[in-house]
Parts: sequence; C-alpha cells; structure tokens
Amino acid sequence: MSETASRALPVQDARIYPRGGLDVLSRAEVARLRDASAGGMHELLRRCALAVLTSGSASDDPRAARDLYPDFDIQVLQQDRGVRIDLINAPAMAFVDGEIIRGVAELLFAVVRDLAYTAIELGPEYAADLESSAGITNAVFGLLRNARILRPSDPNLVVCWGGHSISRDEYLYTKQVGYELGLRGLDICTGCGPGAMKGPMKGATIAHAKQRRSRTRYIGVTEPGIIAAESPNPIVNHLVIMPDIEKRLEAFVRIGHGIIVFPGGVGTAEEILYLLGILLHPDNADLPFPLILTGPTIAAPYFEQIDRFIRLTLGDAAAERYEIVIGDPVAVAKKMGAGIHRVREYRIEQKDSFFFNWAIQIPEDYQQPFVPSHEAMAALQLRPGRAVHDLAADLRRAFSGIVAGNVKEDGMRRIEEFGPFEIHGEPAMMQALDALLRAFVEQRRMKIAGEYRPCYRVVT
Amino acid sequence: MSETASRALPVQDARIYPRGGLDVLSRAEVARLRDASAGGMHELLRRCALAVLTSGSASDDPRAARDLYPDFDIQVLQQDRGVRIDLINAPAMAFVDGEIIRGVAELLFAVVRDLAYTAIELGPEYAADLESSAGITNAVFGLLRNARILRPSDPNLVVCWGGHSISRDEYLYTKQVGYELGLRGLDICTGCGPGAMKGPMKGATIAHAKQRRSRTRYIGVTEPGIIAAESPNPIVNHLVIMPDIEKRLEAFVRIGHGIIVFPGGVGTAEEILYLLGILLHPDNADLPFPLILTGPTIAAPYFEQIDRFIRLTLGDAAAERYEIVIGDPVAVAKKMGAGIHRVREYRIEQKDSFFFNWAIQIPEDYQQPFVPSHEAMAALQLRPGRAVHDLAADLRRAFSGIVAGNVKEDGMRRIEEFGPFEIHGEPAMMQALDALLRAFVEQRRMKIAGEYRPCYRVVT
Amino acid sequence: MSETASRALPVQDARIYPRGGLDVLSRAEVARLRDASAGGMHELLRRCALAVLTSGSASDDPRAARDLYPDFDIQVLQQDRGVRIDLINAPAMAFVDGEIIRGVAELLFAVVRDLAYTAIELGPEYAADLESSAGITNAVFGLLRNARILRPSDPNLVVCWGGHSISRDEYLYTKQVGYELGLRGLDICTGCGPGAMKGPMKGATIAHAKQRRSRTRYIGVTEPGIIAAESPNPIVNHLVIMPDIEKRLEAFVRIGHGIIVFPGGVGTAEEILYLLGILLHPDNADLPFPLILTGPTIAAPYFEQIDRFIRLTLGDAAAERYEIVIGDPVAVAKKMGAGIHRVREYRIEQKDSFFFNWAIQIPEDYQQPFVPSHEAMAALQLRPGRAVHDLAADLRRAFSGIVAGNVKEDGMRRIEEFGPFEIHGEPAMMQALDALLRAFVEQRRMKIAGEYRPCYRVVT
Amino acid sequence: MSETASRALPVQDARIYPRGGLDVLSRAEVARLRDASAGGMHELLRRCALAVLTSGSASDDPRAARDLYPDFDIQVLQQDRGVRIDLINAPAMAFVDGEIIRGVAELLFAVVRDLAYTAIELGPEYAADLESSAGITNAVFGLLRNARILRPSDPNLVVCWGGHSISRDEYLYTKQVGYELGLRGLDICTGCGPGAMKGPMKGATIAHAKQRRSRTRYIGVTEPGIIAAESPNPIVNHLVIMPDIEKRLEAFVRIGHGIIVFPGGVGTAEEILYLLGILLHPDNADLPFPLILTGPTIAAPYFEQIDRFIRLTLGDAAAERYEIVIGDPVAVAKKMGAGIHRVREYRIEQKDSFFFNWAIQIPEDYQQPFVPSHEAMAALQLRPGRAVHDLAADLRRAFSGIVAGNVKEDGMRRIEEFGPFEIHGEPAMMQALDALLRAFVEQRRMKIAGEYRPCYRVVT
Repeated sequence: MSETASRALPVQDARIYPRGGLDVLSRAEVARLRDASAGGMHELLRRCALAVLTSGSASDDPRAARDLYPDFDIQVLQQDRGVRIDLINAPAMAFVDGEIIRGVAELLFAVVRDLAYTAIELGPEYAADLESSAGITNAVFGLLRNARILRPSDPNLVVCWGGHSISRDEYLYTKQVGYELGLRGLDICTGCGPGAMKGPMKGATIAHAKQRRSRTRYIGVTEPGIIAAESPNPIVNHLVIMPDIEKRLEAFVRIGHGIIVFPGGVGTAEEILYLLGILLHPDNADLPFPLILTGPTIAAPYFEQIDRFIRLTLGDAAAERYEIVIGDPVAVAKKMGAGIHRVREYRIEQKDSFFFNWAIQIPEDYQQPFVPSHEAMAALQLRPGRAVHDLAADLRRAFSGIVAGNVKEDGMRRIEEFGPFEIHGEPAMMQALDALLRAFVEQRRMKIAGEYRPCYRVVT
Repeated sequence: MSETASRALPVQDARIYPRGGLDVLSRAEVARLRDASAGGMHELLRRCALAVLTSGSASDDPRAARDLYPDFDIQVLQQDRGVRIDLINAPAMAFVDGEIIRGVAELLFAVVRDLAYTAIELGPEYAADLESSAGITNAVFGLLRNARILRPSDPNLVVCWGGHSISRDEYLYTKQVGYELGLRGLDICTGCGPGAMKGPMKGATIAHAKQRRSRTRYIGVTEPGIIAAESPNPIVNHLVIMPDIEKRLEAFVRIGHGIIVFPGGVGTAEEILYLLGILLHPDNADLPFPLILTGPTIAAPYFEQIDRFIRLTLGDAAAERYEIVIGDPVAVAKKMGAGIHRVREYRIEQKDSFFFNWAIQIPEDYQQPFVPSHEAMAALQLRPGRAVHDLAADLRRAFSGIVAGNVKEDGMRRIEEFGPFEIHGEPAMMQALDALLRAFVEQRRMKIAGEYRPCYRVVT
Repeated sequence: MSETASRALPVQDARIYPRGGLDVLSRAEVARLRDASAGGMHELLRRCALAVLTSGSASDDPRAARDLYPDFDIQVLQQDRGVRIDLINAPAMAFVDGEIIRGVAELLFAVVRDLAYTAIELGPEYAADLESSAGITNAVFGLLRNARILRPSDPNLVVCWGGHSISRDEYLYTKQVGYELGLRGLDICTGCGPGAMKGPMKGATIAHAKQRRSRTRYIGVTEPGIIAAESPNPIVNHLVIMPDIEKRLEAFVRIGHGIIVFPGGVGTAEEILYLLGILLHPDNADLPFPLILTGPTIAAPYFEQIDRFIRLTLGDAAAERYEIVIGDPVAVAKKMGAGIHRVREYRIEQKDSFFFNWAIQIPEDYQQPFVPSHEAMAALQLRPGRAVHDLAADLRRAFSGIVAGNVKEDGMRRIEEFGPFEIHGEPAMMQALDALLRAFVEQRRMKIAGEYRPCYRVVT
Repeated sequence: MSETASRALPVQDARIYPRGGLDVLSRAEVARLRDASAGGMHELLRRCALAVLTSGSASDDPRAARDLYPDFDIQVLQQDRGVRIDLINAPAMAFVDGEIIRGVAELLFAVVRDLAYTAIELGPEYAADLESSAGITNAVFGLLRNARILRPSDPNLVVCWGGHSISRDEYLYTKQVGYELGLRGLDICTGCGPGAMKGPMKGATIAHAKQRRSRTRYIGVTEPGIIAAESPNPIVNHLVIMPDIEKRLEAFVRIGHGIIVFPGGVGTAEEILYLLGILLHPDNADLPFPLILTGPTIAAPYFEQIDRFIRLTLGDAAAERYEIVIGDPVAVAKKMGAGIHRVREYRIEQKDSFFFNWAIQIPEDYQQPFVPSHEAMAALQLRPGRAVHDLAADLRRAFSGIVAGNVKEDGMRRIEEFGPFEIHGEPAMMQALDALLRAFVEQRRMKIAGEYRPCYRVVT
C-alpha cells in the first residue's frame, strides 16, 4: 500500500513495565495475560492500544489511525518479575524525547488490564454467569472495581453525554458547564472522546485548579468498538474499557450520580432513550436521578426536536424525568448539585452504597448486547400501545443500529453488503424518527462523507 | 459454669463498619461473606476474632480467652452499603471510652477478610487447584495479595522466628536485634505472638522512629490453630491468617528476604527443619537465602544442641546453610543487611520479583498439610541414608506432631484419648531427638503443667 | 458618578480567615498588620485585592476594575486567634454560591502577606538596609522566602516574558511552548497577567496533567503598579508582590533557571535590555544563563528588529547571550532543558544553591528604583562608547519611562500635565529607538486609544 | 588527663547538610550563624550538640559526657548552597554504619537552629525588647514558631513534669499514663530527659501506634543548662532549646493545654510552685487549666507532703487549682481529656488561638531570669501575709536556687566557693521547707553523692 507508506508518521519502539494493578500478578496470571493478548484478543488490543497512543489527535474515521501507523504492534511478555509491554512502530506523538508520556502509559495499562480482565474473568467458561441480569451487573461491578473506579467517597460524579463532533459554540458551552460543575466540587465522567466528552473535563480541570482540588477524577468509560474511533482525550485520568455498549451504558448509570446530556447526534439520542427507558420502569419510579438536557441557545432546536419526539413516542409523563436548560451553565451546575444532594440523602436512607447504584433496576433486555443485524433491526416493534420501557428499549435499539450503520466498521460493512436496514413501525412514529434523523443531518450532527444516504429504510 | 461467671471480665457490644478492602464488595460477595461467617466458619471466626480483641494479653492456654469471655459472639451482616460487623459481649480491653481501638479494628477486619477469602476462593469447589504444588503456591500468593502484603518495593523484610515464652534476657536480646535491624531500614515479619515474635517488632519500632521511617511494616503471619493461643501483639500492622501451618510456613519463605531464628522450643526446631529441608533441595542450591541463628550468651547451649542435632541427622553440609551468632545484635543486623543485598542482586539478575520469591522450590510434601494422627506419626521414617530434604521433611513432621501433642487443642485431645504417639527411627537419631527434647524441658523451653510427660514414645 | 452606578457589577460581602503563613502570627504582628492595612497601605491593598478578586477578567485599563467596583473595600482585623479579612462589595465573580473560590482566597492572602511584609520588614526604619546592593538582594530573598517561593529542589523553573496583549497566533504559540516545557517536567514563572504570561502556564498545565505531575509551580511575580492593570491569571498557584519593578526583575533573575522571551511591546523590550545589561557585566561572563527569544513565524520581524536594535546599540557580542528560535516549540523546550542542565552542573560545581542565584552580579544601578520623572528621563545618556552594561541600563530606563508614560497611572498623569518626556541621545541610536517603537505601534504591540501620540520626544 | 583517655569511647567524624528550616537561609544569615557558632556561642553549642549526640544514654552528671568525649568538636561552616555542620570526634553511638541516625540529626539541627535564633534574634541589640512582659512573651512565641512547634490544630497537648530519676514503679506508672493519654489522641510535651520525661512519651508511642495515629508530637522543651545534664530521650521528635529556665517554663504554660505532674524532686516542686503562682494570680482566676498530680500508690506520701506544704504556705484555696489522683492512669487520662475539652471551648468562646495561650497572665517577675547568687537567695522573703502569687514566686525561686546548688555546674561551683546559701523566712514556713527537702532525701528523690549536705541554711 504505497499510499499509506507515504502518509506514515514518525514511530518508535519502546519497552514498558506496568505499574498500579498490573505489577502484582501471579505467574499464572501473567501467562494468561500473555496468552490472551497473543491469541484472539491481539487485534483488539492492537486497536485499543493505538487509540490511546494517538490520544489527543481525534479523527472520526476508525480506519485512519491504522492507516497512519500500519506497522504498529504490541506484545505483552512474561518476566518472572511481572509483565513487560513491547511497543513496535508506535506513534512518536506518545513520547517525549524517547520517554513515553506518563498519562499515556497509564491509559495503555488500563487497556491491557481491562481486556485481560474481560478475557480471563468474563471468558467463555463464565458465559453462564452472564445470562442473568444480576450476573451482568456483577460483571460490570467486577470490571469497574478492577479498574479502581469504585471508591467510597461522597457522591459527586456527573456523567456527561453528547456528540463528539459538535460546533465550536456548543463545545465552548460544554466547557463552561464543566467549569461550573468543577467550581462546585463535582467530578466528570464521559465517553472520553472529543467534543462534548472533552469539553466538560477541560472546564472542570480549570475550575478544580482554581479550587485547589487534588484527587480529581476525569473518568472515561468506553468500549472496544468506540475507542478506536474516539481516542481518549488527554485529560482522562481513569479509563475503563467495558466489553460492549450495553455494559458501558450500565456502567454510566451505576456510577454516575446524575447525567447531563449535551447536543449530539444519533448516538446521543440512543443514550437518552436508553436512560429514559430505565427511569420509566415502574421499579425505578421513586429513585432520584438528576437528568438535565442542556446546550447553548443555538442548540435549542435540537432539544425541542428530541423533546417532541419523546413526548410523541413515550408520552408526556416521560418528559417529567428530565429538565431542559438552555444557555445557563450556572443553573445547570446548581440544579445538578441539588439533584446529587437528594441522591446522597436517598442512598443514606436506603443504606445503599455511594459508589455503585445497586438500587436502580436495569431490565435484562437493556443489558443483553444488541447486534444490529438486518434481522434484528427488522424485528423491532416501534408501535404505540406497548409498555413505555419496552418501547423505549426498541427505539434505543433502532438508534443503536443506525449509529452502527453510519460510523462503526462492522455496521458500515453490513450496509455496503446487504443494503439498508428495514425498520418496521407505526407510520406516525416512523415519520417522527425520520424527521428527527433528517434534522440531525441538516444540523450536521451526523458525520457523513458526501451526500447523506440513510442506512435504513422505514417499513410501516 | 459458675466458676466462669465469677471470672468473667468486662465486656461491651459494638457495631463496626469495615474499611480498606472490605468496603468495596458486590452484593453477592457480601452475601457469601455473611453466609460463610454464619455457617461452618462461624466458630473459627469467633475464636480468631476473640484472639485479636484480646491482643496484648497473651496467655499460652488456648482455652483461657474463651473461658474469660464465654458469651462473646460476632456476626457479619449485610447492608446494601456493604458489610457490618456486630460484636456481642466483646472484651472491653479492645475499646477506649466505648470506641474500638483502631489498630484492633484493623486486625479484626483482617480476620474477616482472610477467613472469607479462604472460605470463598479456596472452598471445596476449588479443591482440585490445591492438589498441585503450583496450585498451592498460587493460593498462598492470592491470599497474601488479597491481604495487601505484596508490594513492589526494595527487599527489606526480615522474618524472625523463635519461642513465644522465652526468658527475659532472651526477650531483651530479640528487642536489641530488632532495634539494629530497624536502624538499618529493615522491616519485620513474625508469627505475631509474644516473646521472640514481639521483641524484634518492638525494637524495630523504636529504631524506625529514631530514623524517622514512616510506612514501616510489622507483618504477622498466623493460622487459625495458632492465633487462638497466641494473640497478635499490639505492634502488628499487617495481619494475615493462612489456612494451615504449611501455607503459613510457605508464606514466610516466599515473602521474607532473610530469616533470623531466636531461641524457642519444639516449634522453632520444626521451623528450622522445614526451612533447611527446602534450602537443601538440589534445585535451591544456588539461591541466596540469609539464615542466622542467634541469641544472647545464655542461649548458646540451645543453638549448640540444635547445631549438633542437625549435623548428626542431616550432615555437616546442612550446617553451611546457616550461621550462628551469639550475643552480637550489631553483627546479626549487618550480616542480614549484606545477605539481603545479595538477594536483591540475585532477583534483579534473574528478573524475579522483589515481593514474592517465585524461584525457591518448595516440594509438594512440604506444602501438603500434615495432620499428626497416630497413624501419620507412626509412618515417619527417621533413618539416615535418605535424601536430606526427604529426611528433613519427616523430622519436621515429627516436631510438628510433638508441638500439636503439647499445646494444640486437637493434639492434646488425641493424646489424652489414644496415649502417646509412636515414632519409628534409627536408634542414634532417635536418641538425639530425645536428648534435644529433654534439653528443651530442662531449659524450660516447653510449657508444661506439672511434670513433663512426653507425648511420644520412641520405637527403634 | 451616575455612569459608574449603571455599570456596577454584582458584588457581595465576605469574612475570610487566612491559612498558610498568616495563621501563626503573634499578637504584635497581627496588630502591625492591621495598622499597616488601615494606614498608608490601605489604598494599595484595596487595589491589589481588587486585582486578584477579578482574576481572569483582564482589562488593560487600570482604572476599569475600580470603576466597575467603586464601593469595594477590604479590612484586615485582629482577633486573638489571628487575622480576619473582611471584604465589602467584593466582585461576585470571585465567589461560587457564596463561598470564595479557594485559589482566589490564596491569592488574596498572598497580597496581604506581601504588602504586610513590605510594610513591616522593609519599612522606613530599615531604609538603610536597602542602600547597598547586598541589602537589596537580601530584601528580595526575604520576600521570596516569606512567600514560600524558595524551595530546595532540582532546577526546573523557566521564566517566560512577553506581551500581555498579543495576537491569537502568538498566544497559541506561547501555549505550545508551555506544553513542551511541561512535558519535560519544567515549571513556569511569569509576570502573571494575560497573553504571554498566561499561555505558557496553560500549556504547561495540560502537559503536567498528562505527565501526572503533582506539586507543579505556576509562579506569578508582580508589583503593585502592574497587578492592578494585569490581574493574575487563574492558573497562578504562587503569587508574590515585589515592592517595585526593579525588585520584581531581580526576583525573576534570581529564581529563574532560564528565561524565554515571547513577542511583546515596550515592556518586553525593557526586560530584554535589563537582562542583557546584567549578563554583559564582566563579572557574569562565565555564568550559564539560557536565554531564548522565540515566537511563531509571524513574529519573526519583531525579533529581527529587536536583534538589529541590540546589535546596533550594544554590539554583536551582546547577541551571543541569546538565541532566537522561530516557530519551533519542541526546539525551544529542548534547548531550555539542556541549558538548565548546564545551570544545574554549574551550581553544583560552585556549591551555589539551586533555589536562588546568589552568584549572578546585579549592579546597584539596576536595583535602585527608577522613577521616570521628566528630569530622570532627560538625564539618560543614550550614546555609544559607554560600557555596554551602563548603556544597557540607560536604554532599559528609557523603555521603562515609555511604558510608564503609556500605560501606568502615574506616568500617564505626568505626561498629561507636563507634556512628553525629552530623551537625549546620539542620533543614530535615537533613530533606531524611534524606529523600533513605531514598528511596535504598526504591529499593534502598543495599546493606545485613538492615534498614537508618543509620550516622549527625542533630543539629539 | 590520662584517666579520661582510657575511658574515651568510640568516635567518628562527619559532615552534615541540614534540612528543614536551616536549608533556605540567606548568605547573610549563614554568615551570622557561622560567626555566632564560632564565637561566644561555641562552647554552648558544643555542649548541647554533645547532649543530643549521646541521646539515650542519660547520666545525671553534666560533666560525664564531656569527659567521655573530650575531643568532640562541632563547626558550622558556610557554603554558597547553605550551611554545613562538621562533627569532629563525635560519639559513634549516634551513627549506624557510618551514617548519622536521622532523628539524631534532626535534634542536632534543632540545637543549631535555636541557639542561632537566640544569638541573632534575641542578641544584645534587642535587649530592650526583653524588658517588658509582652516583649518576653513575644520572644517565647518567636522561638517556638521558628522551631515549628506552633501549629493550628485541635488542642491536644499534655505537658508532663516529674523527676528524671524516679523508681522503676513510678517510671512504669508514667508509661501507663502516657499510654492512656495516647489512646485518647493526646500528644505529649516534656522536659525531654529520662524518667518521668520519657515514660509518658514511650507509653503514648505504643498507644498512638495502636490507634494508627500518624503526625504525632513528642515535644521536648529544654534549656542550655538542663540539656547537658539530661539528654533528650530518643522518642522526642520536636526539640526546642529555650534561652533560660523562665522562658522554658513559660513555653510549657503557653503551649500545653493541660499539665500532669509525676513524682520528682526539688525541680518538680519548683515547677509546681511556678505554675500555682501563675494560676493563683487574680487575672487568671477564670481560666480553665487542668492540673493533675499523680503517681502510683507508693508515691502517695510524696504528693501528701507537697499538698501539705502548699496548703501551709499558700493556703487551702491554692489546692483547688489541682487534683491529686493516685494509682489510676485511666482516671488521669479521662480527667485530662475532659479538662482539655473545656480549654477548647473557652478558647473558641474567647476567640483565642489553640496553639498559644495568649490569655494567661504571667507576671514579669515570673519571666525575668532568676540567677541564684548568694545575694539573690538571701533576698527572698518567705513569710506569710504576702499576696499568694508573690509568695509563690519567691518559694519557686528558693527551690530553683536549691536545684542549682545541687546539680547545676554554676551553682555547685558557687556553693563550693562561698558555702551554703542563706535563706530568710518565717520559722514555720522554713521548717516546712526543710522537712520537705529532707523527705525528698529520704525518698532518694535528690541525687547526691555521699551524705546529704544541704546547699542552703535557714535563717529565720
């Protein structure tokens, strides 16, 4: 591939000895880690490692980094003393004067740690454990604890969702919200890519510095299919790679004490529907869970459309679970602070833990991975009259499939091969869906090369 | 039991919420912990908890504490937020003005943590894992890591063995040795009871304070049968309860960077033979492992007898594995420092870890629990001509059985019921054994009520 | 002043109890502090306090903040327990939900601390101490130590000079240089205003976070006349207010291990001439002192003009004391790192301290405050043939006077009253000076309202 | 002196570079420090340095250490980088394998620091400042702050007074009291020698370890005449050398939140009278100040005699300022804890600082050094009818003179030269004094060689 060669960027080799969690392993564990990383997990490891090594230079095309560093490889080796990681033809941007940047190294260890945990502790022999709702929740808990995300301290973690490619105004707004959150002592958790996932962390960093807060947390929660497309931004100081989208979403819901949604595209809509579906479940009716949709004035239409779509599909009652705030970062931060205060009181009252929301019910169909095959997409039932949380589940699957068809490698390949998905639904609902998606395109909230060709077809 | 009532000491109830290791558990883990502690493990937990709650008031009779606090009980309870420990009729000496002493609370958490780990991770369903030598070593590693004993730092851990009831002169000597070790930045690991297990820690405490060393380690390694008889001394700041004597001995050997043996009784002789047997194994011939036998001038005869016994049974070559130093704490500390320096260099050269001695070979028959039944004792072969490490293994078992017959509840009961053990061996060797034990009695190194009645009979 | 009223911004009152340095004072010290702050020092304290309370909202007009917060006042009060600071009508922007931002509070304590130190320790009764060069250096040392700036640690402090109002491209460049310095473990010291004083700190903050460096230092060194016009940027975590410009410049030279000069205006030219004058002193000939002039490509003309002016006035030899690097942040950081390495070796060799450059000779005429009266300006001798360091001293005074006439309250008032300064000099040199200043105007490096009216007149 | 030579102990030379307080000095300060230590202060420095270098080997004879290390010398040298301390023929016991013990080095720095502070800040040119009561208190404050003893934290400092050579039972009792204080989170301050000054620190050390308290304080407050006779015990981690006995006593009273008096000799009686005299001053009538006299059962007679003497001389009201507790360490610790709680409330109410008792009135005649010349002793007026605090002042001077005549070099020399002091007083009071002193002799509370020859004569 001569073109690639000409585009290849500076690289370098390195040997790294992990610390913090990967440094006290038994011989057997090191061997399993080496085997896992040399076997089926290797390509996954290579891709995720490349993502963190190019941290800071986000590009939306998952194939870009691999084209730019075609000869990159990573080996996990065993030594009596522990693990050694060898990097071959690694991006030079991860190094300073030959030394790997310490934060990048930490993200790299996180990648190895989480993939190894998944390969070893959630491997085929434990498949049965993942067949129940409680089993999946336990797996999520185990991964997060192993990643040292769970810590007994006062509730202060705000999850921020939103698009990775938003307008400059919207980005600056996310930064301002992060700043106001940070001034009030709140930490940030996001999907750890650019855009709305970086802005709040950056704003909070400045505010935390002004408030002289040390031991701050900028948690990135990602999954293998996403990390390759969205390198963790350089501020993330805790990174965890969940095995799939559903466990990633569950992780957000279990560790966050409140959620803020910034403007985004289809992915953000998917996340809103996922969360609403859970909050609308009767078992969660009394659970406090602050949820704020917010953006600058120019983003008002976006949230109006979302709001209209939700009211139309899930009913007005659904809209009571969130609050829309336009152009007022201070109000967002104050409301979130007050909401988290109520969460704290509720947890104390219920003797529930601060660091993991055991009380919230996540139905199993929200937990099971959804593979957006043409069959699965065709099986969705987007019709009124169903229980709202069931309907919300299918709506979120529809968006999930569309995200996959638009930007994920697997999905894009499937669409190229088999043509657009067919989605069945009630006409009014399907028109609303179509209108929403076209609005996203008009507002340039969907990254597409050339003209927009929807990856789906509505069948009413 | 009216007598007991009259002897009963002040007690109090308490509720305790664990920290550090027991605070981030999943619901399932808390449930398993509660079940294990309520089920078969309960009596064990009660006994060990009582031992740490009476820490500081050592008595040699395992039945004493239980008689003094007959109504003591402990319950491990589940709350959504985590674990709660309820103490009922607990010794008032563990509290100050109604608050539990923090160090005692930490030891109590260690007890719960280790018994839970053993019950859950080494339970019946994993029995197969414990059938191989590597499997047992892995279990030892797992327990120690879970107890946060394993830490990547420079080799500096000196294991001190010796008797729990030694003369005042000998005790002061162990303190002085601990002081000289502490001045040189070395940490201490012992069996965590009184006497030679307390003195070195106490001396090191003063020296560490003088050298302004913080983050010092006073590690106690015990097992359920011993802890009840030998309460951890109050200086221990890391406690780990291994499931049995053999895993406890392996823990000492794997985490210690050198071993000092002070005067003791049969138990100390058992430990010396265990260690020599391993060091004399051909696979360990090149391994540096500083081993110093030392005591004040009055203890010189003790070590002469041991030395003579070893040379007679295992040969003069065996004596090259240790050095005897009499009455010179500074020399002991300097030699140990130099020895550990060689260990450090060897580990670096071999790329072996600093915190766990993977390289030392411990044959499986040193790892398998030895239950000193009359049959097992009768099966020992104390005859010359065998491989030294095999012979050493049987000699150590002989001592182990004698310790059990003298001071452990099970053993004492068996002897009461079935009469003394019969031990078979070559006459010269058996006479040497007998002479050694009688010398221990004369030197008052064996705690016995009334006249000494040996718990064994030599059959040549 | 009705206009002011209409512009007034939100304010609030507050009571603050200082920590860290102001918390262990004797009764007598508290009384002296209270008296000093209530007496002649009060207006100065009010102005400086207002500057840090509006930190982050820089405006170039010293009168702006005072107009915006006309009723602001500050009182330092005595309590037996220590000092209390009362703020009346303070800018609301310094508070979050009624609580003062902790970093702002720290800057406020620094203001009180330094003004008190100056008033008490450098007061009229010690005037004699400030008449010798050694005495002034001692005063500088005392102030810096009292501000806890002096710390025994490896040399890593880079002083960055440059303009407060530079173009966006230039600002981004300073940020990138700061980033590359931070990646290499270097800390930043600046004049602590906006522009080139903020950019390097901001870049270093991101780099330090990526390198997981804690205990970083962003030192702001200012003086009463400057702080009011240039609020400390919010990243500064150590602030010290020197009594006058000359002591501020000496502080930079004594604590910095190297200096980077970014594009600026007349003030920056003044700083370059000050430093060159010192470095060209024969006593300092062998002293390593890395000095780099750098900017993005668009700033190349600026440095060419400066370079030309220096060569013309001070000779080509003077140009050997600095290096000009255009558009290459990585090269700047590497060169600075290497330069500081040589400084470190030199200090070790000379047994000089790391935290204070005792060895560098600062002639007394560089230390004595220069008050740019019309008489003083008229007395300057800008003619070739003088010793370069004497000529450099007068050149720097000329620039100092021009800065005062342009932006400082006192200077502006004098010019309004008495007309422009008259500066005497050799024609060629004066033409060069004039050309340089006009170039600054063209490049918009001098902030002036309306058309540029020079505040000086050349008299040849 | 051939005898000395034969007794000389192992010595070694060393170069030490101070840290913590002595590391950031100006060139002028280093020069003054060097000059002071080379000039008149040198012999004092030599003696105090020798005392801390022999820390742990207390001997009551001030001349012993000097005889044992006749060639010891200390030089404070100037380097550009700061201070260097050269030790010549220093006691080898202060070193481990050639390296000075870190805690001993810290005590040595404290000696240099405090003598330098006294020489420089309290030197002849400031003599006027020391002529007022407020000026003396300021000097005490300055010295303590410079020694970093003053810290804003909750009141928890218990001053323990008592004899340096007490019986083993009494020593063990002081240890137990220290243990119970330590269990309750209290820190210890003593005169830092052996006996009652070491026991409470040792007990508290164990208790603090059990309670996992770090950042504990074992403060020793001494003065040049005492330190030579009473080496700081090895547990002291903060040492301050006050310039004379009166400032030392004031330091105890100003920093302690309560005082416990154990059995002692004449010196202890002096301290009790000093404190009572102050507490009985009308200005201090409402001030809470817990004062407990305590010892084991065998010490009961001692406190009865003291109590009787106080009631006889100062009246029954004086006895209400203290409480006598015999043989009950737990009660002592609880009473002290409760007393300090009242002190805390009082300070908050009065807005007085926690770390320095500004509120207590110490009349100037308690602050002015008392030099026990024959004239001064003859001028005392031990007669009833005077204000109790005036009488207490003279009684305390009487004891002070007797202590000097018995154990201090100067005093012993004077008695040898001029014969016993003559003390004037009312017959009943003088008989009580005589009886008390003879009881001390009988109880062996006064260290005397051969038969007791009183150093004073009563003149009625």
